[in-house]
Amino acid sequence: MNNKIILGHGSGGRMTRELVRDVFCRHLDEVGPESMDDGAVLEHAGGKLVFTTDSYVVSPLEFPGGDIGTLAVCGTVNDLAVMGARPLWLSLGVILEAGLELEVLERIVKSIAGKAREAGVKMVCGDTKVVEKGKGDGIFINTAGIGVLENPMQPETIEPGDQIIISGTVGDHGMALLTMRKGYPLKSNLQSDCAPLNHMISSLLAAVDVKWMRDPTRGGVATILNELSEGRSWGVLLEETDLPLSEAVSGVSELLGLDPLYSANEGKAVFVVPSGQAEKALKILKKSPYGHEATIIGSIVSDFPGKTVLHTQLETLRT
Amino acid sequence: MNNKIILGHGSGGRMTRELVRDVFCRHLDEVGPESMDDGAVLEHAGGKLVFTTDSYVVSPLEFPGGDIGTLAVCGTVNDLAVMGARPLWLSLGVILEAGLELEVLERIVKSIAGKAREAGVKMVCGDTKVVEKGKGDGIFINTAGIGVLENPMQPETIEPGDQIIISGTVGDHGMALLTMRKGYPLKSNLQSDCAPLNHMISSLLAAVDVKWMRDPTRGGVATILNELSEGRSWGVLLEETDLPLSEAVSGVSELLGLDPLYSANEGKAVFVVPSGQAEKALKILKKSPYGHEATIIGSIVSDFPGKTVLHTQLETLRT
Repeated sequence: MNNKIILGHGSGGRMTRELVRDVFCRHLDEVGPESMDDGAVLEHAGGKLVFTTDSYVVSPLEFPGGDIGTLAVCGTVNDLAVMGARPLWLSLGVILEAGLELEVLERIVKSIAGKAREAGVKMVCGDTKVVEKGKGDGIFINTAGIGVLENPMQPETIEPGDQIIISGTVGDHGMALLTMRKGYPLKSNLQSDCAPLNHMISSLLAAVDVKWMRDPTRGGVATILNELSEGRSWGVLLEETDLPLSEAVSGVSELLGLDPLYSANEGKAVFVVPSGQAEKALKILKKSPYGHEATIIGSIVSDFPGKTVLHTQLETLRT
Repeated sequence: MNNKIILGHGSGGRMTRELVRDVFCRHLDEVGPESMDDGAVLEHAGGKLVFTTDSYVVSPLEFPGGDIGTLAVCGTVNDLAVMGARPLWLSLGVILEAGLELEVLERIVKSIAGKAREAGVKMVCGDTKVVEKGKGDGIFINTAGIGVLENPMQPETIEPGDQIIISGTVGDHGMALLTMRKGYPLKSNLQSDCAPLNHMISSLLAAVDVKWMRDPTRGGVATILNELSEGRSWGVLLEETDLPLSEAVSGVSELLGLDPLYSANEGKAVFVVPSGQAEKALKILKKSPYGHEATIIGSIVSDFPGKTVLHTQLETLRT
C-alpha cells in the first residue's frame, strides 16, 4: 500500500503535504518552489512576458530517451524559446491515477528536476490531484511557463531566398513512441530526441537574424511548415534528399510506410534565416549538443505561394 | 460521431485547430486568446507577480451552482486574490476523454467565459489534449494564473485579539458534491458556492488591514486554520455557534454525521483582521454579492498556542 499513490494523496491534507514535501520538493530541491504556498511570488523588472501552457499525456510514461517528466519540462521550455523568450518559471500540475507506483513518480520527478536544471528554469509552483484508478492514465502533467520576451520573431520579413534549417534529425520522438505503443516486434535503436533547446536557441539568436522558428512537435515538420506557408505570397520548398533521418527512423518509416515529416519531435527546432546567414547559423547550431546534425532542408520560394512542397517527387505535403 | 470528442481532436492538426476555433475561441471571445499561437505575449510594467496553478478533476462535471469550468476559473482567480494579487491572466489546459459530448464541452467553455468576464481576467493561452475513452474522466482542466502582487499578506503581525471573519456559509461546495456523488436520495437545496472573489477582496483590502486570508477549498475551514496556527505562539479559537451554515448544509451534515468545517468551499474566504477593524470589514463584505452572510467566527488567542480549537464543546479540530 505504501508504495502506491492512493486517493488520500489528493485530499489536500496531511498526505498531500507529505507527498509534495517528500517527493516533489525533495527531488526538485533548488529548482523547486521556495515555499509550500499555493502561489509563487516572482520579481520582474517590466517589459513583455510570454505565457504558455501544455498538458502532457503520453503512454508509456517512460520510454527510450526520456519520460513524461522530461517532456513536460522540455516541451514548455521549447515553446517559450521558439517564441523568442528566455524561459524563467514553470508551474507543475500533476494528475495522478490511484495505483501509480511511487517509485515511477519519483523517477519522473527526478527527470523534471534534471531537465529544469539543464534549462535553467525553476518549477516555482505546483498542484497535485489524484483520480480514481481507471479515471486517468498513470500521470498527466501540465506545465505552464513564463518567459521574458527578448527576440520577437518577424515572420512578416520572410522572403524568397530565405533558408530553412532544422537543428537535427526528423521524427525521432514520434517514431520511438509509436513503435513502443503498437508493440511492433522491432529491434530498433529508436529513441526520443526530447531536449531543452533554449540555450542553443539563445546562442543562435545572439548572432543570426532568425525570422521565424518553431518546435515541430505533434504533427511534425510538415504541419508547422504548412502553417507557416498558409495564406502567404510565397511558398516553402523542401528538399527531400536533405532531410536528416537517423538510421533507425529511416528503417522503421520505410518498413511501416510512415512519413517522418509528420512524426513528432521533442528536441528539434526549425528556423527561417536570411540566405546570407545560413552557414553561420549552421556553425553555431552544430556547437550545441542538440544541434550536431543541423542542416539546411529547404528554402522560401516565390513559386507555390501559400504551399509547402517537397522537391524530388514534387509531391505537396498538404493534408 | 460529430457531436462527440474523438482522438483526432487532440492530433494537433486540423481537427484540433477547428475545435479550438469553434468551441474555445468562439465562446471565450474577448476574454480569450488574441491569437492561436502557442503562447501569449503580455505587457507588464514591472514589480512582483504571483504565479499559481491548479488542476480541476471533479465528478460530476456539472452540478448545482456550477461546473468544472466555473471551478477552474474561480479557483485560480481566488488563489491569486487571497495572496494579495490582482488576477490578470489565466492559461487553460484541457484534457478531454474521447466520447465526451461536444455540447457538454460547449457549456463548460461558456461557463469559463462567463466567470472570466465577471472576474475581469483573460484566458490568454491554452492547450487541448484528448485521451482514449477509459483513460480520463470527461474533462480535466488546468488553469495557471498570473496576477500582480498589490497587497502582500502579513501573517507575522497576527496577535491575540485579532478577529477571524468568513465571507459566508461554510461547507456548501463539498456537501453539494458529496451528496450528488454518493447518490444519496436527498431532496436538498444543496448548491456549490463557486464564485470569483477578487472584486470583493479588493474592496476589502482598500479599506481594512487584512493580515492574512485564504480560500478554504479542499480540506475546508478547519484545514486552513490548522495550517495557520501550526507552530505559532498563539492559537485560533472558533465559536461553533457563530459558524454560518445554510439550512441545507446544516440538515445534511447532521443527517450524515459530516463536519462542514472540513468540507470544501469554492466561493468563500477567511480573513484575519485587527479587532478594531472587524465591524468595518463586515460592512464592506456584506456589500458584495458573495459576502452577504459574512460573520466573525472566532479570534486569535494567547491560549492554545499552535492549535485551532472549537469553543463550546472545547474539542480540538486537529486531525
